[in-house]
Amino acid sequence: MPSQLPIGCFDSGFGGLTVVKEIMRQLPQENLIYLGDNNRYPYGSRPPEEVRAFTFEIMDFLVRQGVKMIIMGCNTATAVCLPEARQRYKMPVLGVITPGSRAAITATRSGRIGVIGTEVTIRSDAYARELQRINPRLEVFSKACPPFVHIVETDEVEAPLTMEVVQDYLQVFHDQRVDTLILGCTHYPLLQHVIARVMGNQVQLINSAEETAREANTVLSERGLLNESNPAPYYHYVTTGTVDHFRTIGSKWIGQPLTVRRVDLGDSESQATAG
Amino acid sequence: MPSQLPIGCFDSGFGGLTVVKEIMRQLPQENLIYLGDNNRYPYGSRPPEEVRAFTFEIMDFLVRQGVKMIIMGCNTATAVCLPEARQRYKMPVLGVITPGSRAAITATRSGRIGVIGTEVTIRSDAYARELQRINPRLEVFSKACPPFVHIVETDEVEAPLTMEVVQDYLQVFHDQRVDTLILGCTHYPLLQHVIARVMGNQVQLINSAEETAREANTVLSERGLLNESNPAPYYHYVTTGTVDHFRTIGSKWIGQPLTVRRVDLGDSESQATAG
Repeated sequence: MPSQLPIGCFDSGFGGLTVVKEIMRQLPQENLIYLGDNNRYPYGSRPPEEVRAFTFEIMDFLVRQGVKMIIMGCNTATAVCLPEARQRYKMPVLGVITPGSRAAITATRSGRIGVIGTEVTIRSDAYARELQRINPRLEVFSKACPPFVHIVETDEVEAPLTMEVVQDYLQVFHDQRVDTLILGCTHYPLLQHVIARVMGNQVQLINSAEETAREANTVLSERGLLNESNPAPYYHYVTTGTVDHFRTIGSKWIGQPLTVRRVDLGDSESQATAG
Repeated sequence: MPSQLPIGCFDSGFGGLTVVKEIMRQLPQENLIYLGDNNRYPYGSRPPEEVRAFTFEIMDFLVRQGVKMIIMGCNTATAVCLPEARQRYKMPVLGVITPGSRAAITATRSGRIGVIGTEVTIRSDAYARELQRINPRLEVFSKACPPFVHIVETDEVEAPLTMEVVQDYLQVFHDQRVDTLILGCTHYPLLQHVIARVMGNQVQLINSAEETAREANTVLSERGLLNESNPAPYYHYVTTGTVDHFRTIGSKWIGQPLTVRRVDLGDSESQATAG
């Protein structure tokens, strides 16, 4: 049954695990395989052509594993090549940009929306284009926040300097009087409580991981692909980096011990090794 | 171009206008035709077989008008015959139950969800089935609130008695410690501020009109049916009741003057009369 196949999800590193966690919470009957391209992390400041090549290597790998849907758990990869990926694969391909955009459209009352993300994501203008395609009257204010991913990956969310850095980067959104701020990077939910303190109660934060899991629900439902009788789903984790590193950090993010294996991508033949 | 065709939406009366208002707000480039079956209002306490017959009469009428998607802006009709409607028509058919359910799944942290609606909606158990199909561990508490539709249709939201009635009906959800309450009737958003006062800050209210417009966005996007260049959309209103009545109440709900015509349904030949 295709509905019992796993969902495939990937990211340049650990960021997409926020999407995995939301899938586990919102769709607890779905099997899942996650690939973290930790060996080539970060994507956010690479040339788009390189991001594109890496992305299709990973998606080809996931397709060979037998998945029913692919979620690009990476805003950078989504910004660079979602439309092309949708044409390339027969199965549903979900990015993290449209779910966040739609949630922002539902949330905003003033029509003034802020977006934060990596340099590549912000430079691509993908959020503004998606938002204004639906409603040309929306005003969109974007800002790249390069240190935020680093803060999360190096586990410095609670460091004294973090609050100051976040304040410094987000001040501009107060001046622009946005009522909605899209966290346009799957790393940012781990920084959400700090961002919320800085932005205050009046600004709604859109967590793209949460919204992407919701849209996976919608798309799987629409296509009759929901797994409706799977009390014990499996979660497989694959990394292009070292198994130990992924197991240590990943288990912390997900909140339970992970089974991880390693894979080499970029070779003529991809080799998976149990770890 | 099919993307320029209107969205069709209907309800037993004025309730579905909350969905229309959200479509206008979230998808301001979409044309729309709304049918209110005011002559046969209310549906909420009719036998399901009768609701089914009325629903297909209306949907056949909307299809003849040339629409690209039908939104069942009525929880009762959705609860009774959404699956059959999806098989009967080639175009996308959206109900108000699945969008509300998916939003509740995203919103809840405790897994304890309350649902309020008409007698038919609650007796159909459609929300509980939809919620538990996705996540069998969710606990769902449902209650029919028959007076709520009457309060809204007779414009008594601000009447002194209303607060007391709402409190009386909703007390049970405090006892059941729900953290999310689905407003499972398209009339209820007009009562939302009263319900919010009664339920307090700790309970998230799910407005099914708002969520249905968001899912219309997703489904139209997925199918390439979004209207992306329509700065001056039209909104056509049709009623089976009297034009004056619909124009008076409807204009108040929508917040602008409406152009309304009358149609007779249930005849061998449906006749539309300009009004």
